[in-house]
Amino acid sequence: MSKKILILNGPNLNLLGEREKEFYGQNTLDNVKSNCITHAKSMGIEIDFKQSNIEGEIVTLIQSAKKKFNGIIINAAGYTHTSVAILDALLAVKLPVIEIHISNIYAREEFRQKSLISRAANGIICGFGINSYIMALDAIKDL
Amino acid sequence: MSKKILILNGPNLNLLGEREKEFYGQNTLDNVKSNCITHAKSMGIEIDFKQSNIEGEIVTLIQSAKKKFNGIIINAAGYTHTSVAILDALLAVKLPVIEIHISNIYAREEFRQKSLISRAANGIICGFGINSYIMALDAIKDL
Amino acid sequence: MSKKILILNGPNLNLLGEREKEFYGQNTLDNVKSNCITHAKSMGIEIDFKQSNIEGEIVTLIQSAKKKFNGIIINAAGYTHTSVAILDALLAVKLPVIEIHISNIYAREEFRQKSLISRAANGIICGFGINSYIMALDAIKDL
Amino acid sequence: MSKKILILNGPNLNLLGEREKEFYGQNTLDNVKSNCITHAKSMGIEIDFKQSNIEGEIVTLIQSAKKKFNGIIINAAGYTHTSVAILDALLAVKLPVIEIHISNIYAREEFRQKSLISRAANGIICGFGINSYIMALDAIKDL
Amino acid sequence: MSKKILILNGPNLNLLGEREKEFYGQNTLDNVKSNCITHAKSMGIEIDFKQSNIEGEIVTLIQSAKKKFNGIIINAAGYTHTSVAILDALLAVKLPVIEIHISNIYAREEFRQKSLISRAANGIICGFGINSYIMALDAIKDL
Amino acid sequence: MSKKILILNGPNLNLLGEREKEFYGQNTLDNVKSNCITHAKSMGIEIDFKQSNIEGEIVTLIQSAKKKFNGIIINAAGYTHTSVAILDALLAVKLPVIEIHISNIYAREEFRQKSLISRAANGIICGFGINSYIMALDAIKDL
Amino acid sequence: MSKKILILNGPNLNLLGEREKEFYGQNTLDNVKSNCITHAKSMGIEIDFKQSNIEGEIVTLIQSAKKKFNGIIINAAGYTHTSVAILDALLAVKLPVIEIHISNIYAREEFRQKSLISRAANGIICGFGINSYIMALDAIKDL
Amino acid sequence: MSKKILILNGPNLNLLGEREKEFYGQNTLDNVKSNCITHAKSMGIEIDFKQSNIEGEIVTLIQSAKKKFNGIIINAAGYTHTSVAILDALLAVKLPVIEIHISNIYAREEFRQKSLISRAANGIICGFGINSYIMALDAIKDL
Amino acid sequence: MSKKILILNGPNLNLLGEREKEFYGQNTLDNVKSNCITHAKSMGIEIDFKQSNIEGEIVTLIQSAKKKFNGIIINAAGYTHTSVAILDALLAVKLPVIEIHISNIYAREEFRQKSLISRAANGIICGFGINSYIMALDAIKDL
Amino acid sequence: MSKKILILNGPNLNLLGEREKEFYGQNTLDNVKSNCITHAKSMGIEIDFKQSNIEGEIVTLIQSAKKKFNGIIINAAGYTHTSVAILDALLAVKLPVIEIHISNIYAREEFRQKSLISRAANGIICGFGINSYIMALDAIKDL
Amino acid sequence: MSKKILILNGPNLNLLGEREKEFYGQNTLDNVKSNCITHAKSMGIEIDFKQSNIEGEIVTLIQSAKKKFNGIIINAAGYTHTSVAILDALLAVKLPVIEIHISNIYAREEFRQKSLISRAANGIICGFGINSYIMALDAIKDL
Amino acid sequence: MSKKILILNGPNLNLLGEREKEFYGQNTLDNVKSNCITHAKSMGIEIDFKQSNIEGEIVTLIQSAKKKFNGIIINAAGYTHTSVAILDALLAVKLPVIEIHISNIYAREEFRQKSLISRAANGIICGFGINSYIMALDAIKDL
Repeated sequence: MSKKILILNGPNLNLLGEREKEFYGQNTLDNVKSNCITHAKSMGIEIDFKQSNIEGEIVTLIQSAKKKFNGIIINAAGYTHTSVAILDALLAVKLPVIEIHISNIYAREEFRQKSLISRAANGIICGFGINSYIMALDAIKDL
Repeated sequence: MSKKILILNGPNLNLLGEREKEFYGQNTLDNVKSNCITHAKSMGIEIDFKQSNIEGEIVTLIQSAKKKFNGIIINAAGYTHTSVAILDALLAVKLPVIEIHISNIYAREEFRQKSLISRAANGIICGFGINSYIMALDAIKDL
Repeated sequence: MSKKILILNGPNLNLLGEREKEFYGQNTLDNVKSNCITHAKSMGIEIDFKQSNIEGEIVTLIQSAKKKFNGIIINAAGYTHTSVAILDALLAVKLPVIEIHISNIYAREEFRQKSLISRAANGIICGFGINSYIMALDAIKDL
Repeated sequence: MSKKILILNGPNLNLLGEREKEFYGQNTLDNVKSNCITHAKSMGIEIDFKQSNIEGEIVTLIQSAKKKFNGIIINAAGYTHTSVAILDALLAVKLPVIEIHISNIYAREEFRQKSLISRAANGIICGFGINSYIMALDAIKDL
Repeated sequence: MSKKILILNGPNLNLLGEREKEFYGQNTLDNVKSNCITHAKSMGIEIDFKQSNIEGEIVTLIQSAKKKFNGIIINAAGYTHTSVAILDALLAVKLPVIEIHISNIYAREEFRQKSLISRAANGIICGFGINSYIMALDAIKDL
Repeated sequence: MSKKILILNGPNLNLLGEREKEFYGQNTLDNVKSNCITHAKSMGIEIDFKQSNIEGEIVTLIQSAKKKFNGIIINAAGYTHTSVAILDALLAVKLPVIEIHISNIYAREEFRQKSLISRAANGIICGFGINSYIMALDAIKDL
Repeated sequence: MSKKILILNGPNLNLLGEREKEFYGQNTLDNVKSNCITHAKSMGIEIDFKQSNIEGEIVTLIQSAKKKFNGIIINAAGYTHTSVAILDALLAVKLPVIEIHISNIYAREEFRQKSLISRAANGIICGFGINSYIMALDAIKDL
Repeated sequence: MSKKILILNGPNLNLLGEREKEFYGQNTLDNVKSNCITHAKSMGIEIDFKQSNIEGEIVTLIQSAKKKFNGIIINAAGYTHTSVAILDALLAVKLPVIEIHISNIYAREEFRQKSLISRAANGIICGFGINSYIMALDAIKDL
Repeated sequence: MSKKILILNGPNLNLLGEREKEFYGQNTLDNVKSNCITHAKSMGIEIDFKQSNIEGEIVTLIQSAKKKFNGIIINAAGYTHTSVAILDALLAVKLPVIEIHISNIYAREEFRQKSLISRAANGIICGFGINSYIMALDAIKDL
Repeated sequence: MSKKILILNGPNLNLLGEREKEFYGQNTLDNVKSNCITHAKSMGIEIDFKQSNIEGEIVTLIQSAKKKFNGIIINAAGYTHTSVAILDALLAVKLPVIEIHISNIYAREEFRQKSLISRAANGIICGFGINSYIMALDAIKDL
Repeated sequence: MSKKILILNGPNLNLLGEREKEFYGQNTLDNVKSNCITHAKSMGIEIDFKQSNIEGEIVTLIQSAKKKFNGIIINAAGYTHTSVAILDALLAVKLPVIEIHISNIYAREEFRQKSLISRAANGIICGFGINSYIMALDAIKDL
Repeated sequence: MSKKILILNGPNLNLLGEREKEFYGQNTLDNVKSNCITHAKSMGIEIDFKQSNIEGEIVTLIQSAKKKFNGIIINAAGYTHTSVAILDALLAVKLPVIEIHISNIYAREEFRQKSLISRAANGIICGFGINSYIMALDAIKDL
């Protein structure tokens, strides 16, 4: 049976392609989604691709992954830096987790240089634009 | 007329019994709920037992307690450490508040050792496993 | 065609008039809303007046302002001090933004003396009670 | 008898219109003064408009306001961030005080993001260019 | 054979009932002692109830508990925040430990908001006045 | 009836006259005591002059002052910087308290530049050698 | 020839008796001056009693003391906490220096709990109201 | 002409496979090298694979890359956290840079959670074991 | 027409030659002035040499330099470490600025190791005694 | 006449051999004492071997060493990190002092990684188990 | 077969006997080496005695110890406080490690009071001059 | 006999003229070298001009200066901010030392605003481009 991966996107990622293009590039989240689906298909992986602006909904989505998915790729965006709740959800489900960021958060403002959720991640990929998603898909199959 | 107490549970507490058992034990939140109901009944207290992963919903639940409840027992979980909004809601309703934690947060990672909501609590009980709930029920009747 | 302004209210502001009156005064949020509507009308401005306790909903409301409004007046209340998500949303929509506070947050507890969202605001008005809203309306027409 | 308001300007504000225009705009302090006088007159308010580069002179001007003025609007400029003496003078005269800034100090260098005198202010207005002065005049009549 | 619990009281608790009543209430330490004895007896527990102003004596009392008691309830008062020696003693005896405080130390001055001895406590109860003692007795039987 | 003042000396002050003379001068604690007795007598004040190396004994001495003395002069020496227990005792007895130091602690190592007990002191005298004691006696009669 | 002492008063001390009486009492600076003159005369000491709101003027007054005075008593008020210039002037003149404060600055807001000029003081007296001045006069004769 | 990539390995990476296997796995650096060569060849990329324990040699290797390589993949190991010299070299050569780590440094000791060289990296990959190298090769072709 | 340079001296520099000779040497400010005039003349430069103890006067002197001078050499002494007002004045005039210090401030007390005005300086010279002035004259001609 | 050395043991060291064996090993303090006596005798040194849980008693023991001993070996245990009083006593007696620790305190929790008394020690030996005592005896003969 | 110990000396230790004698004494590193060889021989231990000014060479020397030595004695000098690379090398070889310092680094400047490599040391000896080396040899035989 | 000066250049300075020209200008290190040689010759000074990327080599070069040179001019570049080893070498040789920087490090990123080696420098020159070298040569002859 094929692997299933949950790809989670945090707040404001639905604006991708419209917002601060110097950091996030020109692709929309829909583009990212199709790219991911295509790429995953070619790898024999099924994905679910979700976005939410609400911290607690992301928590719930992570929780629900426990039974249905084999791994989580998460771009927690603005919640990356402060959310104990998302960290706890990731710790709780005990699935392989890859944390991704489109921009290199470690070269931006100081408050973006700290990720609270990294403690729950197996690996981190950041700064490769939307390619970060594809790289994460490639990587998660081996975790 | 009997006292009514609102018992509020924050993010990921719905996973109780599945998640990091060394910290949280083996009981599910449903077990905790029945235990609380049974115990409260024996004390002549009525309780409402809620859980939410969403910070703002917890705020709303606290607000709504103002007219319907005589006190609040809150395990804010991951929002304990960062939520000004929950703190403000607790300050606003001016009901007796007991802050509880299943594990001893003061013996865990540094970011868990600070509770922002303690400023609004009459008393704090932490580290007694799910017994923290029962102890809080026992204690709130005298506040 | 007349200007349209979105006025956003964060967590617990729905309790206005009931909550800690030494800081927030006696007016309810409904009073504030009618005052704003009346005042805006006299200026030939249309307003939409929203309140939410949920951080992610505020994010969504800000995002949706992009196409429909000419500016945002935001009292982010408890999310002022910690929300990267709201900051990012404000940065993304690139509308004129006025940050307001009913009380003078810079004369209160230390954790209230830091606003994360100020980086995205054109101007800040705080400490004038509900008059802060009217002043923001007056000011936003020139931004 | 008409209200009298003291408008105080701190160091380097005499250079307005010549200095770092991206932050402070193109108006000179004389323009600001005439705008304030005109606007105040239309409100039936008398103003005195002072500038000094010397911290201690600003202290003395504040002290002298006690008997002659009904309120103080202060743009303490470079002394905003460090002057206990100005803070103490403002606390001592016990008049309504509005702190203003032409630029949004909370979106600039870190050492400009802390105002020591905010503790003595009723309200704060910052980031509206020279309009901050007019807004303060409008606001002070209600304090 | 019945359980034996050592209840330890730190510096100034002998002044209970005379000292800062807004924090500590009106009961004397003798009242607390009798309440504890009565309550313990009803639970079939024997207690020893000690107070000392001397950090090192508290250390010695804890050490001596190792062979004679089944658990320790400790209100370390002023030594809570700084005593490595008491922490080490508690770690050494390896008995169940409940840390209690009469007032909610987490809502007081900053230097009281940090307990060094919490690392050695199974559970913490604070803010319930002298009822904290009774609650600790109730709780310790299950540890 | 004459006033009675308790003069308390903390750890190592019994070594006065032998220890680090550049900071503490050449007088022994016995000299200081006689000087204080003589001076107090001339003022019609009775004094009790105590020294202890044990923090908890100083706490006990302060407590016992409540009924027998009209004021406390305390040189807490090494406990000045860390003792919450002594602070609490001073707060509890609610007598006039003068904190003294022989050397100017604010011109020495950083860890000596912070006094925890100043919060409980009416006044502070430091740096006048053993004359600090006489000055404190002169001052306490007016508190 | 008699000793001459310079008594220097920093910003806002000219408001003494009008300003925040809970901290500073009811005496005016003129009262303090006459008390000092009378007391000094009785000790055979001549004094000069100055006040300035301007940091640089206080620096100049200290400098000029070098040739004309035998010691300096300084209440630097708001400049106590930040003035390197006053510290340097005191270090330069190499006269005996007593730092005084009317209120106990170490029991007030955190930013008042640090004196930069203490490094240049022989002794410090604070918290004795205007009696601090008289005590300093008594003490300076022995330095 | 084919792309040439420099892969740089910092101190102790020559011990790979022998050292702390829970963090670094069982592969030796020679294994990593052959894997990289094979993979690069399949991509039509030429690589140079270097290791040095000496900070300054790594600086020199980076400098020499300017003319001969199209990109740098760097695992700076222990120099990641402190080397301004390596950062400056990376900034100077202005080539695409990918920072990699075998283990997830953001989930280890605090001093390992800060990378000084991230400011010079286009992207960061960490926590994927030696697969981090392969992923970096895949990614660098698009930079 | 010849270049004109303003040389500004901050608080206590008028004491040069009398004050702490281990740091500042034996020359008086008058010596420094003649040396500077002689040296400048030999370079075909005109100088104005000013000293003030008053922060605000230094601000005014800097402002007035805008039209009359081609560069500023400033030894801000005690105001170096804290004056935002002097920093702002230097930023405003947009002339070449050289910051000088007689002693090596970076090898003295910690509070002297931070210069706030360096942000506005083209270059910094410190630790060369009064030669720092001559070196600055030599250097400013090339800026 | 033979050298006399005082060996001082702080709080909880009387539990040696029973307490946290991973840090402190299996020897009891009595073993340590006999080992020290035997070893000292072989070196022609007389020792006094003391333990106290009370900070002030340790202070007194140090003071009393002044006349009777030629050096002090101190394992201050839990008081190592916070005791100004013990530091002052060691500074006062001016004897050679060796600070010892059984475990390597610099590899344990952060609060154990700072010794306040090291400022008064000639040398420090830590981490060698009870051999630290013997090594200190060997070393002290040359100080 | 006899034990083999590697003694490693960090930067500037080759200057021993010429450099800051108040801290490091008068012996040259050659003296130290002969002393060590002689003493080791008497213990039946073989030693290798190395010095390098280059951090990376020290790393390499540590690595090479893995197969040839039974323990490492290291005086990392200036690299003690900052070298993650040396720490990692010590952690990697998993040999007994004794960290030594000639002077008492914990009684010197603040930046010398923190050793990064202590985490990898079994024991630490500091402040005994060159005797620290001999003591380490004595101690290492039992590790 | 003529004076001999060692001019030392730290990591990446060999890239001068190629690297970040907004900070470092267009001259190559060879240009700087010839300029220095020419200028030194005109002063009757001999120089040795060295560059190394390796911290330990710089340490060795400094050490070797002791016998052969009369002073050191050092631009430690990236090692300025972190190298205790270079600081110690400079302290050890006890020659006059001038620290130079091409750019104004105090107006750049925070981690560049702190020089560890300034403690060992007689004087500091920074921000004058490659002229900093010439100025240092001019200055060192008088040290």
